[in-house]
Amino acid sequence: MAIEPLSEEERAEALDALDEWDYDEARDAITRTLTFKDFSEAFAFMTRVALLAEKADHHPEWSNVWNRVEILLTTHDAGGLSHRDVDMAEAIDALVE
Amino acid sequence: MAIEPLSEEERAEALDALDEWDYDEARDAITRTLTFKDFSEAFAFMTRVALLAEKADHHPEWSNVWNRVEILLTTHDAGGLSHRDVDMAEAIDALVE
Repeated sequence: MAIEPLSEEERAEALDALDEWDYDEARDAITRTLTFKDFSEAFAFMTRVALLAEKADHHPEWSNVWNRVEILLTTHDAGGLSHRDVDMAEAIDALVE
Repeated sequence: MAIEPLSEEERAEALDALDEWDYDEARDAITRTLTFKDFSEAFAFMTRVALLAEKADHHPEWSNVWNRVEILLTTHDAGGLSHRDVDMAEAIDALVE
């Protein structure tokens, strides 16, 4: 089941709304870096994101160094950003608000 | 509390023993990439490593893309590889044996 990438207009609108996310043009992806008090808090956050990701069947590319978590979202099946990335970004933002 | 880096001889011995790990000379670090059946298994493994890391107060630099986990171990306080990395690598290997 192919997933449609965002149109130019939809992408512009999404990037405008997702204040905390940067656009990675080379990957047609969005990225966010979050910093926590320590590793325990960072990994607790990652666990919550993992549950979201598994539920949505949409998984981030991400890395962690102690209290820092870097997340990249893109949709391989769409060849770039899709509504699934926007939904996941909004869900991640809701976790850390 | 400074941690001593491995001597040349200790490093050579450790790298010889850690079959599954590659040496990153630029970082004076060791790296291992593991592949699992799916995200759920990969993240379950990461959770077990997180518990090891917190217990040892020694944390990996790592990334995950779906079923793949890349781990880099080095000791910032030692400016490179220390016995703490060797111990952590052995503990991680024991998890996946």
